[in-house]
Amino acid sequence: MEFLLDFLARLVTQFQTPTLGFLIGGMVIAALGSNLKIPNAVYQFIVFVLLMRIGLHGGIEIREADFTAMLLPALFSVVVGVVIVLLGSFLFSFLPGINRADGYATAGLFGAVSASTLAAAMVLLEEESIVFEAWVPALYPFMDIPALILAIVLANMHQHKHSEDKHSKVDVWGIVKESLRGSALSALLLGLALGLLARPDSVLESFYDPLFRGFLTVLLLVMGMEAYERLSELRRVAHWYAIYAFFGPIVHGLMAFGLGYVAHVLVGFSPGGVILFAVIAASNSDISGPPTLRAGIPKASPSAYIGASTSVGTPVSIAVCIPLFIALAEVVFDV
Amino acid sequence: MEFLLDFLARLVTQFQTPTLGFLIGGMVIAALGSNLKIPNAVYQFIVFVLLMRIGLHGGIEIREADFTAMLLPALFSVVVGVVIVLLGSFLFSFLPGINRADGYATAGLFGAVSASTLAAAMVLLEEESIVFEAWVPALYPFMDIPALILAIVLANMHQHKHSEDKHSKVDVWGIVKESLRGSALSALLLGLALGLLARPDSVLESFYDPLFRGFLTVLLLVMGMEAYERLSELRRVAHWYAIYAFFGPIVHGLMAFGLGYVAHVLVGFSPGGVILFAVIAASNSDISGPPTLRAGIPKASPSAYIGASTSVGTPVSIAVCIPLFIALAEVVFDV
Amino acid sequence: MEFLLDFLARLVTQFQTPTLGFLIGGMVIAALGSNLKIPNAVYQFIVFVLLMRIGLHGGIEIREADFTAMLLPALFSVVVGVVIVLLGSFLFSFLPGINRADGYATAGLFGAVSASTLAAAMVLLEEESIVFEAWVPALYPFMDIPALILAIVLANMHQHKHSEDKHSKVDVWGIVKESLRGSALSALLLGLALGLLARPDSVLESFYDPLFRGFLTVLLLVMGMEAYERLSELRRVAHWYAIYAFFGPIVHGLMAFGLGYVAHVLVGFSPGGVILFAVIAASNSDISGPPTLRAGIPKASPSAYIGASTSVGTPVSIAVCIPLFIALAEVVFDV
Repeated sequence: MEFLLDFLARLVTQFQTPTLGFLIGGMVIAALGSNLKIPNAVYQFIVFVLLMRIGLHGGIEIREADFTAMLLPALFSVVVGVVIVLLGSFLFSFLPGINRADGYATAGLFGAVSASTLAAAMVLLEEESIVFEAWVPALYPFMDIPALILAIVLANMHQHKHSEDKHSKVDVWGIVKESLRGSALSALLLGLALGLLARPDSVLESFYDPLFRGFLTVLLLVMGMEAYERLSELRRVAHWYAIYAFFGPIVHGLMAFGLGYVAHVLVGFSPGGVILFAVIAASNSDISGPPTLRAGIPKASPSAYIGASTSVGTPVSIAVCIPLFIALAEVVFDV
Repeated sequence: MEFLLDFLARLVTQFQTPTLGFLIGGMVIAALGSNLKIPNAVYQFIVFVLLMRIGLHGGIEIREADFTAMLLPALFSVVVGVVIVLLGSFLFSFLPGINRADGYATAGLFGAVSASTLAAAMVLLEEESIVFEAWVPALYPFMDIPALILAIVLANMHQHKHSEDKHSKVDVWGIVKESLRGSALSALLLGLALGLLARPDSVLESFYDPLFRGFLTVLLLVMGMEAYERLSELRRVAHWYAIYAFFGPIVHGLMAFGLGYVAHVLVGFSPGGVILFAVIAASNSDISGPPTLRAGIPKASPSAYIGASTSVGTPVSIAVCIPLFIALAEVVFDV
Repeated sequence: MEFLLDFLARLVTQFQTPTLGFLIGGMVIAALGSNLKIPNAVYQFIVFVLLMRIGLHGGIEIREADFTAMLLPALFSVVVGVVIVLLGSFLFSFLPGINRADGYATAGLFGAVSASTLAAAMVLLEEESIVFEAWVPALYPFMDIPALILAIVLANMHQHKHSEDKHSKVDVWGIVKESLRGSALSALLLGLALGLLARPDSVLESFYDPLFRGFLTVLLLVMGMEAYERLSELRRVAHWYAIYAFFGPIVHGLMAFGLGYVAHVLVGFSPGGVILFAVIAASNSDISGPPTLRAGIPKASPSAYIGASTSVGTPVSIAVCIPLFIALAEVVFDV
C-alpha cells in the first residue's frame, strides 16, 4: 500500500519533472497542430552527442572498473533480450488477426533498447542522487543485438517452413555487423573506446556534460511530437499491439529487475544499476532497431511495430516504468 | 539637450556592443559577397532555443508573479497592436502609388512582433543591469495576434467592397489558430507552459542560458546578412515603404512607452519593463508574421512588406529604438 | 637522441589525447563501415564556430598587441606560402607520370592553410600550457592567399605556353576576392574585426570558448571518417602524391620553424607562436582551398590534390608535425 502511494506520488512528481514535461509538451503541441520543427540534421547531431557522452562516461568508468562485476549483468542482458523476444513471439502466435512477421518484428523491437529512454533514466537518477555504475549503459548492446538477431532468425525460420524456397540462410554475422554499424551503437561504442583509450575527461566536462541535459529535453520534445503523430498510424493496426506495447515494458522491466536483484546479491550490483538495467529492458528501440528489422524482416509492416513502440511503448517505459522501478528499489533496497 | 547627448553616446556605445556588432558584421560581409552561410537547419534550431529560453524564464517568473500586475500591460499590448495597424492602414490609404493590399500587410507586419529584436533587447538590458519583470516577453502574443488578425480583416473587408463576391467570410478563429501554431509562438508558449508547470530551472541554467547569448550573436549575423540581401528587393518597391519602415518603429515604440509609463504609475510596471514593452511595439515581425500574412492577404506582394521590415524596420528597431528608449527611461525614471 | 625519445614519447601521448583520439576513432569506424553521420548542416556550423572563436580571440589580442611584432611573422607567412608552391611545382615537374595541372594544384593546396589543423594545434598548446600570441592564427590569410594565387598563376602560365590561346589573362584580384569570400576566411576575418571593434569578451567566454573544444572533437571525428573514405581515391592516383603528402608537411613546417626562430631572435616571437607558425605551414587546406583551385585550375583532377591532402597530408600534419614541433621547441627554446 505504502509502495503504491509512493509510486503514485513519484508519478505525479515525474510529470512535473522537466525531462517528462518536454515529452508531454511535445505531444500536446503536436495535438494542437503546431508547426514547430526540430530540423532532422540537428536531431541527428543531438542523438550523437547524447550517445557519445554516455559512451565516454562509460568508457572512463570501465577503465577503473572491476571487470568481473560487469560479467553477470552482461550475461543477464543477453538472457533478458532473448526471453523478451521468445515471450513476445509466442504470445503473438496465439493472438488472432496478427500477421506473424509483424509479431516477430514487434517482439524484436521491444527486446531491443532505446538510447533516449536510457538517457532520460540516467538524468532522473542523477537528479535524485541515486548512484549507479557508469558502465551500466554499456549493457545496451548485450541486450539489443541478441534480441534483434533472434527476432530476425525466428521470422526467417517461420517463413522457411511455409515457403517453397528451402535454400536461403539467415546471415547471423551480417545482422551483428548491421547492428554494430548503426549510427546509435557506433556512437556509443566509439565513445566507450575513446573513454577507455583516450583521456577525454576535460572535453567531457566542458562540452558533452552541459549539452547532455539540454539536448535531452529537445530529444524528448521531438519524441513527444512523434509519438502523437504515430498515434494515428496505431489506430490502423490491431488492438493487441497497443495492449502488448502498454504491458510489455512493465513486464520486461520487472523481469530484469528480478535478475538485477540477483546480481545485487551475488556481485554487489548497485540499486541504481538495477533500476537502470530494468529501464534498459523496459525500453524499446526507436532509432537503431527499425532499419535493422526493416532489412531483416521485409514482410513485416513498419507501421505495426514502429507505431506500437513510439506511440505507446516509449511513453510507458519513460512515464510509468522509470518511477515504478525507482519506487520498487526504495522498497527492496531501502535506498 | 542632455538627453540627446546621452542618446548619441549610447548609440555609439551600442555600435561597439557585440549584439549589434554581429548585425553590422553580417551586413558588411554580405555586401562584400562572402560565401559564409549559417545552414537553415541550424538557424531554425537557434531560433527555437532563443524562444524556448525566453518562454521558460517567463513561465518561471509568472509562477511567482502577481497576476494582476500583468493585466494592464497585456491590455495595453492589444491596444498598441490594434492602433499600429489602424494608423498604418490609414496612412497607406492616402499615400500615392501604394497597392492597398500591400499597405494592410505592411501595417500588419509592423504591428506584429519580432522575437529576435525582443531577445536582443533583453540581452542589452541585462548587460546594463536594468531589471524587468520576466513575464514581459509573454506580452508578445497579446500584441502580435490582434495586429495580424486586424490587418487581414481590414484587407478582406476592403477587397469585399470592391469585388462581386460578397459571400466569403474572414475566418478570425482560423487566423488565431494559424498564429498560435506558428513555430515562433509555439516555442514561446510551450516554454511558458513548461516554465509554469514543470521545474526546468536547472536545465535552464546549465543549457538554455549559456546558449542564449551565443546563439543570439549568430542570429544577428544572419539577420544582418539577410537585411543586406533584401535591400535590393526594397529598391524595387515604393519609397514610402522605406520612410514608413524608418519612422514607424520609433513612433510605435514611443506610443508604447507612453502607455507603459501609465502602467508604471498605476500598477508599478518596472522601468525595464516599460523599455522592453516599447521595444516589442517598435519591433516588426520577421519569422512568424510573413507566412500568416501571405496566407491571409494573398494579393499583397511579399517583397513590399518583408523588404521594408527586414532591411529597414528591424535594423532601426534594434540600433535606434533600443538605445533611444533606454536613454528616455533614464530621463523619465531617473534610473 | 634525447630529442628523438622526447618526440616518440610525445607521439605516444598524443595518441592518447582526445584531440587525436577522435581523428583516429573516425578513421576506425569508417573502416568498419559505420553508418554514423554528422549532418553537413551541423558540420558547417561547427566550422563556423571554430573559426569565429579563433578570429574573436585574435582580434581581442590584436587590440592590445604591439603591431610591429606582427609585421615580420606576417611577411614570413607570405614567403613560406610562396616557397612551398614554388618548391612543390618544381618537384612535380620532374616526377614521371604527373599531370602538370595536378602538380600545381597539389602544391597550391599544401601551401594553403587548414583552419582545423590550426585549431587542433591551438587546443594542444593550451592543454600543455604553452603560451602564444593570440594574433598568430591571423597569419593564416598571409600564407593561404599568396599560395593559392601563385599556384593558379603558374598553372595558367604553363597552359599558355602550350596552347594556341595567348590572350586570356589570369585574374589575380579575382582570386584574392574569391579567397577572402570563402566561408572559412570570411568567418575568421569577421571574427577578427568583431574582436577588434566590438567587445565580444563575455560572449566569447560563455559561448564560443566552451563550444570550441567540444566542436573540435566532432570536427576531427568527421575529418577521420573522410580521410578513410578518401584513401580509396588515393589508390587511383600516382604514388608520388602520397610521398609528397607525407614528407611535404614535415619539410614545410621545419622551414617555417626556422623562419619563426629568426623572428624569435629579432622581434621576440614567442616559442608557442613559432610552433603554431610551423603548424600553419605544415597544414594543407581542406575546406577553403579546393573550391578556389577547382575554379582556378579546372584542368587539375580534384581526386589527386584533395585525396593527397585529406588522406595523408592532414593526418601527418596533426599527428606527426604537431608533436614534432613541440618537441623541437623544447630543445631549441628550452621551454
